[in-house]
Amino acid sequence: MAEKIMHYSLEEILKMDKRFRATFINSLGGFKSVVLIGSKSKDGYENLAIFNSIVHIGATPPLIGFIVRPDSVERHTLENILETKCFTFNHINEDIIPQAHQTSARYPKETSEFEAVGLSPEYKSGVNVPFVLESNIQIEMEFKEKIDININGTLMIIGEVKNIYLPKEVIKEDGFIDLENSGTITCSGLDSYHRTERIVRLPYAKPKLL
Amino acid sequence: MAEKIMHYSLEEILKMDKRFRATFINSLGGFKSVVLIGSKSKDGYENLAIFNSIVHIGATPPLIGFIVRPDSVERHTLENILETKCFTFNHINEDIIPQAHQTSARYPKETSEFEAVGLSPEYKSGVNVPFVLESNIQIEMEFKEKIDININGTLMIIGEVKNIYLPKEVIKEDGFIDLENSGTITCSGLDSYHRTERIVRLPYAKPKLL
Repeated sequence: MAEKIMHYSLEEILKMDKRFRATFINSLGGFKSVVLIGSKSKDGYENLAIFNSIVHIGATPPLIGFIVRPDSVERHTLENILETKCFTFNHINEDIIPQAHQTSARYPKETSEFEAVGLSPEYKSGVNVPFVLESNIQIEMEFKEKIDININGTLMIIGEVKNIYLPKEVIKEDGFIDLENSGTITCSGLDSYHRTERIVRLPYAKPKLL
Repeated sequence: MAEKIMHYSLEEILKMDKRFRATFINSLGGFKSVVLIGSKSKDGYENLAIFNSIVHIGATPPLIGFIVRPDSVERHTLENILETKCFTFNHINEDIIPQAHQTSARYPKETSEFEAVGLSPEYKSGVNVPFVLESNIQIEMEFKEKIDININGTLMIIGEVKNIYLPKEVIKEDGFIDLENSGTITCSGLDSYHRTERIVRLPYAKPKLL
């Protein structure tokens, strides 16, 4: 790219308008995983919320984490997970982007976001938290660890994968899940949703292969 | 999708072949941010490594984290960051995917991955760690916090954004960075690289907008 390069220092970033900075810094890290987290309070209220701070923690045991801000609309999800130790990850596909995004609105605890946005809670045998019926990849998670991130008061929640439900055809011979084929989308910033197109899969890298 | 749905329990996941499981679980969380992390040891050895476990931590102050496995090829990056407190994030575009992937090979500490894979270290005034010249979005980071993830012995490293360099034309009026336009790619699993195509940006969600 030949165009003009802009430079922003930390001092300039901290002087930005608050909403501008939130949008800017949320875009900066690259494209992100985005899922719907389903949960349920001890007294039976369903919750569904969109999260884009999902991070792979490990494969053995299978662990996935996410960042949560306890003072935000995300707090119902956090409270439910700490109460019941159980939640679901549900991949988002093109058909449910508006509904998924709408779960980020600030609904009262008594309102089920499923009903409010028009998605269907799905209950599987022996599991007390809702999955999203319209989601092509559904994961049941068990809460394992809550980590305080002291520097800004956020938390990382780590869960263990208990059960996975996904279309047979998207699982490749080597274990690779073809997310593109499953319709899973990615996001950038706070509100931008993208489909993907594979460029390449590359072999395991060893020194001097190039 | 109407095809057969597969179900995997935790027990079945733990029985999978180790490499199959690594590929499977690494794909499961969705599309991921992927960047090259540049660093330098106290005694002057450059390091460049690909990471796909980047996570937004907060905007005020601007914080980005990533997961690192201390017993892996990633350990040089970790050692350098703890020694010098300084590192760079460099976005990956289509032109440098093979080189970026190749940094995951296990080179000795004395080998600069820049040289080994064919990317150019770029030094900016007053900064002792290398950026990737071929990268369109470059970020200078200062180490802030190391968090032990006890459940599997991995670490989360959190850094603060010190300086950002990016093309002027990709910054939108509201602060959104048009990563697609900057050529930034996304990845899935351990080895699959994808370009994106925007579907939609949606307005800030409020209750009852639907």
